[in-house]
Amino acid sequence: MEENKSYEGRTDLALEASESLKTTGQQENGILIEEEYQKKTDIRITCVRITNEEAEQAVGKPKGTYITLESPALLYEDEGYHREISTELARQIKKLLSKEQRQSLLVVGLGNKEVTPDALGPLAVGNLCITRHLEPKGQTISAIVPGVMAQTGMETAEIVKGIVNETRPTAVIAIDALAARSTRRLNATIQIADTGIHPGSGVGNHRHGLTEESLGVPVLAIGVPTVVDAATIVGDAMGQLLDTMEETEKRKLIHGMLDERLKNLFVTPKDIDETVKRISYTISEAINMAFSGTRY
Amino acid sequence: MEENKSYEGRTDLALEASESLKTTGQQENGILIEEEYQKKTDIRITCVRITNEEAEQAVGKPKGTYITLESPALLYEDEGYHREISTELARQIKKLLSKEQRQSLLVVGLGNKEVTPDALGPLAVGNLCITRHLEPKGQTISAIVPGVMAQTGMETAEIVKGIVNETRPTAVIAIDALAARSTRRLNATIQIADTGIHPGSGVGNHRHGLTEESLGVPVLAIGVPTVVDAATIVGDAMGQLLDTMEETEKRKLIHGMLDERLKNLFVTPKDIDETVKRISYTISEAINMAFSGTRY
Amino acid sequence: MEENKSYEGRTDLALEASESLKTTGQQENGILIEEEYQKKTDIRITCVRITNEEAEQAVGKPKGTYITLESPALLYEDEGYHREISTELARQIKKLLSKEQRQSLLVVGLGNKEVTPDALGPLAVGNLCITRHLEPKGQTISAIVPGVMAQTGMETAEIVKGIVNETRPTAVIAIDALAARSTRRLNATIQIADTGIHPGSGVGNHRHGLTEESLGVPVLAIGVPTVVDAATIVGDAMGQLLDTMEETEKRKLIHGMLDERLKNLFVTPKDIDETVKRISYTISEAINMAFSGTRY
Amino acid sequence: MEENKSYEGRTDLALEASESLKTTGQQENGILIEEEYQKKTDIRITCVRITNEEAEQAVGKPKGTYITLESPALLYEDEGYHREISTELARQIKKLLSKEQRQSLLVVGLGNKEVTPDALGPLAVGNLCITRHLEPKGQTISAIVPGVMAQTGMETAEIVKGIVNETRPTAVIAIDALAARSTRRLNATIQIADTGIHPGSGVGNHRHGLTEESLGVPVLAIGVPTVVDAATIVGDAMGQLLDTMEETEKRKLIHGMLDERLKNLFVTPKDIDETVKRISYTISEAINMAFSGTRY
Repeated sequence: MEENKSYEGRTDLALEASESLKTTGQQENGILIEEEYQKKTDIRITCVRITNEEAEQAVGKPKGTYITLESPALLYEDEGYHREISTELARQIKKLLSKEQRQSLLVVGLGNKEVTPDALGPLAVGNLCITRHLEPKGQTISAIVPGVMAQTGMETAEIVKGIVNETRPTAVIAIDALAARSTRRLNATIQIADTGIHPGSGVGNHRHGLTEESLGVPVLAIGVPTVVDAATIVGDAMGQLLDTMEETEKRKLIHGMLDERLKNLFVTPKDIDETVKRISYTISEAINMAFSGTRY
Repeated sequence: MEENKSYEGRTDLALEASESLKTTGQQENGILIEEEYQKKTDIRITCVRITNEEAEQAVGKPKGTYITLESPALLYEDEGYHREISTELARQIKKLLSKEQRQSLLVVGLGNKEVTPDALGPLAVGNLCITRHLEPKGQTISAIVPGVMAQTGMETAEIVKGIVNETRPTAVIAIDALAARSTRRLNATIQIADTGIHPGSGVGNHRHGLTEESLGVPVLAIGVPTVVDAATIVGDAMGQLLDTMEETEKRKLIHGMLDERLKNLFVTPKDIDETVKRISYTISEAINMAFSGTRY
Repeated sequence: MEENKSYEGRTDLALEASESLKTTGQQENGILIEEEYQKKTDIRITCVRITNEEAEQAVGKPKGTYITLESPALLYEDEGYHREISTELARQIKKLLSKEQRQSLLVVGLGNKEVTPDALGPLAVGNLCITRHLEPKGQTISAIVPGVMAQTGMETAEIVKGIVNETRPTAVIAIDALAARSTRRLNATIQIADTGIHPGSGVGNHRHGLTEESLGVPVLAIGVPTVVDAATIVGDAMGQLLDTMEETEKRKLIHGMLDERLKNLFVTPKDIDETVKRISYTISEAINMAFSGTRY
Repeated sequence: MEENKSYEGRTDLALEASESLKTTGQQENGILIEEEYQKKTDIRITCVRITNEEAEQAVGKPKGTYITLESPALLYEDEGYHREISTELARQIKKLLSKEQRQSLLVVGLGNKEVTPDALGPLAVGNLCITRHLEPKGQTISAIVPGVMAQTGMETAEIVKGIVNETRPTAVIAIDALAARSTRRLNATIQIADTGIHPGSGVGNHRHGLTEESLGVPVLAIGVPTVVDAATIVGDAMGQLLDTMEETEKRKLIHGMLDERLKNLFVTPKDIDETVKRISYTISEAINMAFSGTRY
């Protein structure tokens, strides 16, 4: 099983992680999957619930709810910055956070704004409507772009924990660029999870987590896959060959993919600059909507 | 006195604040000024010590030591990024922080990196040699660019206090763009103070301070004047006229300078982009020197 | 007259330049001014036409049509990025350029993107919908951000002339940050002129012009005042004093304002980053509208 | 042969292109390769000369001289920004351009500064010492960052040709990010070619060339491989498997690699931001050296 996983490649999407279980017939009892297709907006909403430890192990993701919005439209420019997707994302945020939890929000823009596909979080924070310092009566938003460990020398978890202790928000939303397994999902999927951020996830591979357990407040994680690990691309391309191969060849293959040099490489589309800018806007608009008084 | 001050204009430089006392003959006992001129490097070092409350009131700066390095060379490009100034600045940092206090440093890059003259702090942090996460045996540096309140919704003091509580550095150095009174000092002076950052100082006008009292560790403030308040420019230009004027005219004048519209304006040189980039490098090199084992 | 002008301060707005003539009663025959107030959108449209050489001399601007859109709303954030102003600006562009002239447009984003108030042109170009390389049937847009002379070593006019000769657009729109005389107009006015860009105008003070004469195609200039010259601020604040002063004092005053050190300084608002970003979007949307087939 | 090439993957390095001929024993007469190893600086200098049409066809690169500097040190940080490599690069530039050709240089920073691995050219231009507008007596440098076609709507070749016609430099140096075949060479190799830039080369895949033929002045191309095509990574990993496979399997494999989705993907290291910044500095220092009067 472990070996099998390794050449299927890493994914931060619970949807992809549970898909592979389906195909191998190993889906456990603790995994609930619901799908909904909105014809009018062409958005596919999938909700994966991981409810027990067996399921945690099988999927390789912690217990919790993972919602993915998939829309081919996300890949293309749109004058309204995909308002229909922002609206749906805002609706999902409001389902996962109660009105009390939405009282004062801290948004954390994870990632390295100097590396284009990892700049999703910092860019999204740049478009938020920040209100905490204005002390309005309604819900307030504060935000931080902590930077990555090579820039700060600190674990992101240390920085965020310190700020949460000091400013006492009622909830945290962490926005992060993710790694997908399939190139088809790059920049075409938004995942919202009520589990927070866990070690090893995200493009920057966090060492410590940002979770309700560590921060003391609910943590939503919003992410978009903007890269595929280099090793995964190799595995993908060879998938169809595997069946016809002998065991010795397979081993060679796996060895090749786990090549040390591939480990620090990632694969990303050539137009990633425009795409990341656009999707970051879609996400920040959703948060602005979910935390303002106005109806939509 | 208060009125007098208001049209002399705001300054973040203790040097300028104590200078005006000299000219008006109001220098108090609690102000000690020492000057040193290094002929070889053409750097003028002035140390202003404010030692009691009367002096605090007269100068308008809290008790402590303020060292300024003035060098006309800072205004011009230099292939070695002014290594002689970095070296002197490193020497001053080592005088103000003991070896124990230099064990683990947190550098805070204050200011708004999107506004050119306010980007000094963020730019300086970008050039630091960050080492805390590498866990070397010697002294370590960590750093944060917290952003400004309009971007975060939080007081910078809240953010830094949270991070200090969590990561326990032995000292903090805060780098900030300052406002000067005289256009002659713009980008030609570096101030190092052992008092930290106080409310109302810096280009962004901090509401809360970053001080040893609030953070629990020594706080050095390193600043460079990159702007002059618009009201100060007006006052400067009119200085020579004041003597010949009648009281009514003076009042009108002062009223004009305190014009609401001038309050949110600042004055800065046209080549501020190159200058800020260059000086930020000089400062970060000094910190790198002061916190590495190597001699210089 | 010359002296008088010098302490009134430089302005790139024909509206301001002709206003001062009104107050001094020196308005010439060759100046036609029409005003229109749109109640619904709260936009004031002023059209200044300079029709002969006497008027050119008096106003200090070349013959041509200068339209200004003034809206207090421009100063404030707006979810739709001021669509009503974009729409009006698009309408004015279509009035100044015939359908044939709109066939293939080259937009030139003038200014230094590293200096916040001078980044208007480069930012606006970043939001344009570029179509020339896609070879659609309709009107096409191409764009260039040439940089400033300190970055390129070349006159902007040389760069643009070379590109125009090679790519043969049917019209050029040059977007530039301007200097105003009054702080009240900062970031609250958009000027569209059919005269192109002339030497000495803009924040960066172009040495050579971009005009129909030099480029061989019609050149519209779109500009927003984002700075006031430091000398102008001084003059503004002292305006009311001038009447009561004697000639000798006036001379001293003027001398003070022409101070060498003030020449390379500019005055700009503290929130210039947000403002410039927003207005650049309003302008690029207007160009996108004027050069797409869609109605609005 | 063609098929063979396609799964070996694209490379912009003449060194790599001629290497594969060596292994396949197909090296032609028209290919001259000289190697030099500088022990003191640990730089390996390889000069590939392609002298006739057969060699052009075999290597897939136009006739001319391609010099590569390889140094493992390039991958690591260095306080002096690799001055020894800058010095060697400056020496090579002076060998390829005569004193007359070095009279007035135009540097073209190719690539998209918004996409980290493609920002090499724009970053290098940012560090140049621009002198043409200062009209010094010696050699002068001017520079342009033209942007990519998606941003400008124009071929880069059109923009550069127009500027060359207008400003008449005596030589052009084009700096560009390249694609390598081997991940081992990423960011560890600098190539200087006297052939200019040809269609299909560079990360952005230029449609038209920048050559002496098209511009009328000598064109040096300086490039660093910062990405590997996604298809190449797949080919690399599978190299060892190929020998043991049957023809049908090979075909399947090749088909997989030519997958439409892989075409618009590139592979790059996770620390590409720091690396590209550092190497761009090494290159701009070399040009500054080669075009200043000073000895080194």
